[in-house]
Amino acid sequence: MEDLDTRFMLQAIHLAKKAWYSTDPNPRVGCVITQNNKIIGQGFHIQAGGPHAEVHAINAAKDAGYDLEGSSAYVTLEPCSHHGKTPPCCDALIKHKIKRVIIAMSDPNPLVSGQGIQRLKEAGIDIKVGVLEQEAKNLNPEFIYKMIHSRPFLRCKMGMSLDGRTAMASGESQWITSTEARLDVQRLRAQSSAILTGIGTVLADNPSMNVREETYISLADNKIRQPERLILDSQLRIPLDAKILASPELATIFTTSQQLFNDKSIQLRDKGVRIISLNEVESALDLKQLMEELSSMPLNSILIESGKTLAGSFLEEGFINELIIYMAPKILGNEARGLFDLPNLQFLKDAPQLKIKDIRQVGVDIRLTAKLK
Amino acid sequence: MEDLDTRFMLQAIHLAKKAWYSTDPNPRVGCVITQNNKIIGQGFHIQAGGPHAEVHAINAAKDAGYDLEGSSAYVTLEPCSHHGKTPPCCDALIKHKIKRVIIAMSDPNPLVSGQGIQRLKEAGIDIKVGVLEQEAKNLNPEFIYKMIHSRPFLRCKMGMSLDGRTAMASGESQWITSTEARLDVQRLRAQSSAILTGIGTVLADNPSMNVREETYISLADNKIRQPERLILDSQLRIPLDAKILASPELATIFTTSQQLFNDKSIQLRDKGVRIISLNEVESALDLKQLMEELSSMPLNSILIESGKTLAGSFLEEGFINELIIYMAPKILGNEARGLFDLPNLQFLKDAPQLKIKDIRQVGVDIRLTAKLK
Repeated sequence: MEDLDTRFMLQAIHLAKKAWYSTDPNPRVGCVITQNNKIIGQGFHIQAGGPHAEVHAINAAKDAGYDLEGSSAYVTLEPCSHHGKTPPCCDALIKHKIKRVIIAMSDPNPLVSGQGIQRLKEAGIDIKVGVLEQEAKNLNPEFIYKMIHSRPFLRCKMGMSLDGRTAMASGESQWITSTEARLDVQRLRAQSSAILTGIGTVLADNPSMNVREETYISLADNKIRQPERLILDSQLRIPLDAKILASPELATIFTTSQQLFNDKSIQLRDKGVRIISLNEVESALDLKQLMEELSSMPLNSILIESGKTLAGSFLEEGFINELIIYMAPKILGNEARGLFDLPNLQFLKDAPQLKIKDIRQVGVDIRLTAKLK
Repeated sequence: MEDLDTRFMLQAIHLAKKAWYSTDPNPRVGCVITQNNKIIGQGFHIQAGGPHAEVHAINAAKDAGYDLEGSSAYVTLEPCSHHGKTPPCCDALIKHKIKRVIIAMSDPNPLVSGQGIQRLKEAGIDIKVGVLEQEAKNLNPEFIYKMIHSRPFLRCKMGMSLDGRTAMASGESQWITSTEARLDVQRLRAQSSAILTGIGTVLADNPSMNVREETYISLADNKIRQPERLILDSQLRIPLDAKILASPELATIFTTSQQLFNDKSIQLRDKGVRIISLNEVESALDLKQLMEELSSMPLNSILIESGKTLAGSFLEEGFINELIIYMAPKILGNEARGLFDLPNLQFLKDAPQLKIKDIRQVGVDIRLTAKLK
């Protein structure tokens, strides 16, 4: 029984991974339904707004002509008991007279954790929780972070030379890192809820900040789920034709209240861009207030792709959870531009400390992943 | 026969490694003597001035009561045919009527390569060359480099934060990297012929630049072979009691000809320090001339442990062969001191290019080894 439970849960986890790049801001969830120890239906959540994994699995079993009464359901995450964009999965499991539900992990949101389990128990269903729990947690690290901490997981990506430089003194910076590193950044973007950058980067490089690789096409609609684009632009200097505004419905600009009703602001809003005002602190946007705004948005993870000033400010505020550095095997020297402006750091003991989580070769470059302590 | 040759040569290579940290400036060499496919004597070169591997092996066989006539000798490097500090090994092999000599690699010095082999052949000895050749080359990469290029192999070691900083703006820099990284630097020093540094580092940190770890004690005399210490000091500002002069017979100071006969120079020479004068180029010591001087000294490898100015100059001159960077998981920010001053670098395309050879965790730090292209 134990071995079968593990085997079926492993299959549910495999299923959940199939939608790795498309469920955001929802979690990745897989479900397997068995009868007499044979799989009769399986499914996984593909995209926010679409059916949950349990419903896909139930429908698959019904479509194959099975009566679900007395069967077992394996789910990688506690079934929901609340009405969201779709009806609660608990109701569907109860309605189809499932006899036993095996759950890898309970809901990470402390406010609703255990409510689904409780509801199923009250309906007389046998419950087992914790099968392959860690594997299930690994499916949704950023979703879980958001649920526990009520704020998005912030990842900062940097490309630099071996001596920590991002561009020549002149600003020349194209192609510091390899094609393989840039492809890897596509993967980071594809699994992020949003990309955050500053107006300096927008004006200097006119980046699209989108996902272009077909690897990341969603199974639901054959489209790539694009991350939101968040732009910090206190003076509203962004050109209306900036590439980052190419999908204006995905763009949010943070600016000061003085800019909120001027012509540029109106033009941007007419395009479909969202404008949010923030207070100013020492002639920069208030990052603490920004974090509150970001926490109220449906974002599990944010990828920061910015210059040294903004990245440095986020680091000094202690907002960055993870740093991903692509190191190109070049030396640019001390005249070249550095990684982080940390104007308030004076003593070595106060320097931000990290823990290296992973380091590997990506093309000719090195990718280093570090967690902020 | 093939398998036995490989097996005995592998043993000779194992033997050569036993003196990894003590043979410099001589190569690491091992020797095995066999009779009827059994080892009757073995040995390895331990220390410059002492017997070569072949002599150790011959003596061991004789001490055990064997007559060496008709036996085979496995040597990891072509036996020498010239009189150095000891008589030529070829003569010893011929004198003891060795029948067959198996050599892993010929002498890397193009001027004498093959002469030992020729001499043995003329004496009627059967010769086989190239058994485990690459493994034999791996015993002596720096010795081989020196023989081929007539100049020492230059390795530059740096300790930095993840963002490429070596010290705070104030100069505060103690303990940027971990205990494990500092122990690893002891290993680098122990296998280097010399350490090279600048007067700036001497005045700022008063380093000993010696090897202290007992791991590196030589089998010959139970002492640690200490690397030479090379100090660039154009104004002869070094204090007479600087720790780096603690073993004055190992110290060489490079300065300008103006300093060569002043009081400080005489005091240093009285201590036993060697003083060499160099020309000045743009108010700095002429590094090209320095390289000529270093090439004329019995140095296979030099470890540069210096600040950003000197390291940058060596990098700009194209003198550095290998870069070893210890990266501490900290961020020091753009006010902090950088790795290399490269005042002449303007365009990205001209930036020094490297190839990553190795990257691994050393304590909490990362050690990155890169070859200059």
